[in-house]
Amino acid sequence: MLPRGRPRAMGAAVLLLLLLVVGFFLFGRDPDYGLGTTATLDEDPYGSRNLSASSPQLLLPPKCEMLHVAIVCAGYNSSREIITLTKSLLFYRKNPLHLHLITDAVARNILETLFRTWMVPAVVVSFYDAEELKPLVSWIPNKHYSGLYGLMKLVLPSILPPSLARVIVLDTDVTFSSDIVELWALFDRFSDKQVVGLVENQSDWYLGNLWKNHRPWPALGRGFNTGVILLWLDRLQQTGWEQMWKVTAKRELLTLMATSLADQDIFNAVIKEHPHLVHPLPCVWNVQLSDHTRAERCYLEAADLKVIHWNSPKKLRVKNKHAEFFRNLHLTFLGYDGKLLRRELFGCPNQFPPGAEQLQQALTQLDEEEPCFEFRQQQLTVHRVHITFLPHQPPPPQPHDVTLVAQLSMDRLQMLEALCRHWPGPMSLALYLTDEEAQQFLHFVEMSPVLSMRKDVAYHVVYRDGPLYPVNQLRNVALAQALTPYVFLSDIDFLPAYSLYDYLRASIEQLELDSRRKTALVVPAFETLHYRFSFPNSKAELLTLLDAGSLHTFRYHEWPQGHSSTDYSRWREAQAPYRVQWSADYEPYVVVPRDCPRYDPRFVGFGWNKVAHIIELDAQEYEFLVLPEAFSIHLPHAPSLDISRFRSSPTYRNCLQALKEEFHQDLSRRYGSAALKYLTALQQARSRA
Amino acid sequence: MLPRGRPRAMGAAVLLLLLLVVGFFLFGRDPDYGLGTTATLDEDPYGSRNLSASSPQLLLPPKCEMLHVAIVCAGYNSSREIITLTKSLLFYRKNPLHLHLITDAVARNILETLFRTWMVPAVVVSFYDAEELKPLVSWIPNKHYSGLYGLMKLVLPSILPPSLARVIVLDTDVTFSSDIVELWALFDRFSDKQVVGLVENQSDWYLGNLWKNHRPWPALGRGFNTGVILLWLDRLQQTGWEQMWKVTAKRELLTLMATSLADQDIFNAVIKEHPHLVHPLPCVWNVQLSDHTRAERCYLEAADLKVIHWNSPKKLRVKNKHAEFFRNLHLTFLGYDGKLLRRELFGCPNQFPPGAEQLQQALTQLDEEEPCFEFRQQQLTVHRVHITFLPHQPPPPQPHDVTLVAQLSMDRLQMLEALCRHWPGPMSLALYLTDEEAQQFLHFVEMSPVLSMRKDVAYHVVYRDGPLYPVNQLRNVALAQALTPYVFLSDIDFLPAYSLYDYLRASIEQLELDSRRKTALVVPAFETLHYRFSFPNSKAELLTLLDAGSLHTFRYHEWPQGHSSTDYSRWREAQAPYRVQWSADYEPYVVVPRDCPRYDPRFVGFGWNKVAHIIELDAQEYEFLVLPEAFSIHLPHAPSLDISRFRSSPTYRNCLQALKEEFHQDLSRRYGSAALKYLTALQQARSRA
Repeated sequence: MLPRGRPRAMGAAVLLLLLLVVGFFLFGRDPDYGLGTTATLDEDPYGSRNLSASSPQLLLPPKCEMLHVAIVCAGYNSSREIITLTKSLLFYRKNPLHLHLITDAVARNILETLFRTWMVPAVVVSFYDAEELKPLVSWIPNKHYSGLYGLMKLVLPSILPPSLARVIVLDTDVTFSSDIVELWALFDRFSDKQVVGLVENQSDWYLGNLWKNHRPWPALGRGFNTGVILLWLDRLQQTGWEQMWKVTAKRELLTLMATSLADQDIFNAVIKEHPHLVHPLPCVWNVQLSDHTRAERCYLEAADLKVIHWNSPKKLRVKNKHAEFFRNLHLTFLGYDGKLLRRELFGCPNQFPPGAEQLQQALTQLDEEEPCFEFRQQQLTVHRVHITFLPHQPPPPQPHDVTLVAQLSMDRLQMLEALCRHWPGPMSLALYLTDEEAQQFLHFVEMSPVLSMRKDVAYHVVYRDGPLYPVNQLRNVALAQALTPYVFLSDIDFLPAYSLYDYLRASIEQLELDSRRKTALVVPAFETLHYRFSFPNSKAELLTLLDAGSLHTFRYHEWPQGHSSTDYSRWREAQAPYRVQWSADYEPYVVVPRDCPRYDPRFVGFGWNKVAHIIELDAQEYEFLVLPEAFSIHLPHAPSLDISRFRSSPTYRNCLQALKEEFHQDLSRRYGSAALKYLTALQQARSRA
Repeated sequence: MLPRGRPRAMGAAVLLLLLLVVGFFLFGRDPDYGLGTTATLDEDPYGSRNLSASSPQLLLPPKCEMLHVAIVCAGYNSSREIITLTKSLLFYRKNPLHLHLITDAVARNILETLFRTWMVPAVVVSFYDAEELKPLVSWIPNKHYSGLYGLMKLVLPSILPPSLARVIVLDTDVTFSSDIVELWALFDRFSDKQVVGLVENQSDWYLGNLWKNHRPWPALGRGFNTGVILLWLDRLQQTGWEQMWKVTAKRELLTLMATSLADQDIFNAVIKEHPHLVHPLPCVWNVQLSDHTRAERCYLEAADLKVIHWNSPKKLRVKNKHAEFFRNLHLTFLGYDGKLLRRELFGCPNQFPPGAEQLQQALTQLDEEEPCFEFRQQQLTVHRVHITFLPHQPPPPQPHDVTLVAQLSMDRLQMLEALCRHWPGPMSLALYLTDEEAQQFLHFVEMSPVLSMRKDVAYHVVYRDGPLYPVNQLRNVALAQALTPYVFLSDIDFLPAYSLYDYLRASIEQLELDSRRKTALVVPAFETLHYRFSFPNSKAELLTLLDAGSLHTFRYHEWPQGHSSTDYSRWREAQAPYRVQWSADYEPYVVVPRDCPRYDPRFVGFGWNKVAHIIELDAQEYEFLVLPEAFSIHLPHAPSLDISRFRSSPTYRNCLQALKEEFHQDLSRRYGSAALKYLTALQQARSRA
């Protein structure tokens, strides 16, 4: 950093002197170091290690200067990609960043939630609607896999705010391995006429003749790659960019019919015509790993790679003898715990996103010595949330449709296939995972024919943070993302009766639940203690197993009060739905309208998390109706870490007790004397204990 | 990088010119930027962002130049610390590194295994025995928590190889946040007389008067911190360093009685006397986070932190308003997947550790399209291994002692406490974890009074890599680390009878196993299907439960052949050990001498991994003796991911079949016709299937 407040003129004089010195080096370079045959790459093609010693411009922008980045992003898969790119960007950056994201509705939905919950200091995100840009480029026939979205980079100068003078444009499939400020600093090397900075292509595509009748678009030599672009926006406006690229594109399309590489073909055609517009960038700023890449000539010489570009449709599976090296760089950020990027930039003003400072303050005020500290901390934790992590087809709107809602962590993945076989309807599942586990989960789904077929299951990743399982926060994420009018609030260890999905929809219709919004349909819960057992095909079969002792009503031995209100003996005989009353500790699995009350997020770890929700339903005067043909069965599993801690630690039990009491205080505040019965029930339970 | 082959004289001329230019800047600096009051810090105290623009020396060493780092490391906890430090070093480095590790026996044992299995290209590790250095420093009374090991930094110049001219010395509690080559480059800024590079202390310790009678050792102003040292070794030798520090230390000890901060006190006393020896380094190269740190003055101004030093005994729990920021940097490397650092340095010769190239070649030759590709790949994978991850007290040598050997992953942690209650003897457990999970495991043990009390349980972390569970590789790691003459080869889901440990030792003694080395004592296996059950206190109680149907012989329903040879009905009545014969698919849990055959590592994932080991024992003519009072009971758990895949994927089953056949081929090669019976058994089994 330069000492501040020194007169600019002095800096300029020094710069001039340095320029003279360094020019001496540059013009003495061995020409063999150039990557290609074009004359455009004759200066510092590798991005020298001793950057400042061999390049005319030395100075990085001031510490707190905002850098602008624009990215086009559409769909589920690109939304995952852009997060990895962003992690690599944030890891190395030391400046505030403003991300300008041009998104479709899917990506916007995902990324808005993600960035809101990520709460990274000194990052501003703006969204631009890609739908509105489609008409601007849809007239261009394009054969590239990026579709219309690839072409949108051409119209950025007209849609980004006029106040924005310069921007770095990135493809979603690049990974940073250095601080983007060094790339931004290259704007200073542009001559007055140059408006776009690009790295030369590292393949022979534009040289033509790759196969018979291979006729690429016109380009200077190997042409340039548009995965990383420095755009000087105000100059582009002044040079009449919009007019310029359209004229060129229309002319070329007369003979070439369509673009093969989307925007890149058009950028190259324009540059071929106006070579003075381009500022060639050092090759290390866009190391291209396509199948027949010549990138090796770049990275074997360079001391330092800056940006890696997975510009093959095969992405990480591209064949390359150094593939392992590059994959490791990429996997670094794929698996990197994003919460570690919530790092402030020391000395920069106004960097905190909404709520972040208050949250930080609340966390700081907690007393680490207090016995329930872990609970308090966990309750305050804001988890990063990546909704619809995998491609998803929302269910068509149907008035009686039901979404199964549940949450799980890695150790329950093996339940998913069975669950899919038992529940043919939509599901909304929250998964509590580390960034690394999220990738394992992705692999798991891809490997499973059962799971990869199902597009009506929405998986929402909530990233792990803290020692206690935030069970109710997870349930709320899954619940908020359910798109049908009704939800079945289940748990991951339960398999529903094969007929349950159809039966629930029929029941909702018959009972005309619309007109009685405050109804909770109870699905009676059973359990088996055997890993392998043959699932009953009907209520009759279930009753036989029950009588034979192969099945039990759920938690009959350990926690009978959890389900006693369901009244299993009445259920045996019941032919029609029957109403039951709330009683202390009741926690049935229920079907309710999607706008039902949320779960109380204060309950983290094991215990009382569903009980509190059922109290809330009862307090809001939901009617509990048990369905005579509905059932679901719990499969055995080892006790969770949280249950084990609950059983072995008196502190854990005391903290849970404290949470219960606070819950009841809140209840009294909200429902007044109507909440009295819950408090009485709690006190009776305590005096029994 | 400078163009190669250009005459050095030209470079020198340019440097001179640059020096003139840049000197202009330096002498114009605002003096307020200096951190402390000492005159030693007047140049570039923050390590400027535009390093080259404001500093006299610009040039980094050539791309492939080896950098040398020395670290003193002793004990279990420092061995974990040094790995995190090394990960941060390797993440940013772009030069070959030679680590000179001065270790006690514990650290050497851990780190030799770790670096051998880590296989990082372009890293050389040399070990030096700290025991031999103790006499050189043990005459110095020292009150610092680092003990004698801290003082050893003083004698490095006399023990490192004479060929080594310069070395960077690091404490184990530093984390890099930049490329160490930039630190190495600072050697070039030393004047001819300077021999040691240090960062000024960021606390007021050496100013004295922190409390009544606080009398620190003499120092220049705030003094210097020795967490990061640049040592110019050959110059130190020439200046008579050894004589110099000893004279100073002895003189000061006459009045000060002992060092408070180990080597740091002595370094400072020497520097106070010979200030020309020290070259002050920019503060960012040692940002000190002790409790009353004044480091904020450094990092709020600096654009870039280079090295963070956790120089409080509280380490990560130190109080600091930016603690979260620094913790996040540290956690980055704590949880970083070390295998991603197996990155080559492009263009540098001879960088591969022994075996790495062959391994890489073997992996490259695998056919990704082959159905059993995942199995082949998993078999070849070399996992990083961190033996004795936690402090461990080896069992005293006893001729009949038995170590329980087992392996587990994260989802079985909750078994550990129960296991500790059932087995009061030594255990050797291999844990298959990610780097992040290893930290969770550490936390889990620290939180558990039962586990943190037990120092006779050795935990060996095998780092995860690949989709299949490398069950037999894990077993071999745990087996190799067992230190008693006998081992009980168990599985993590089994709880042994409370009396088993004593009973086994007594049986080994009575049976005089020493004289019959090839004996395998069979511990009969049972199972319960209930999560909660009361564990039988005797064989009689067990038989009662068995008759009541609450217990079963292990896998009676699914896989009776696994244990039928144990002959449970004979066991019911047996009063004395009885011999049984091998039969197809037999896989009992056995107690054998520690030098028994290893498990066959080709079996990864689910299936046949123990069966193959028992065949190996039988082929080597081990005698199977069932113990009449021994038993162990399997607790229920959800099927593992690997079992689920085995059940659902025909490919998985086919690959397992292929492994079996290869195993039998090897068996025939090694045992000739004696192995025929196993092949016959396999064929019979196949014809039945």
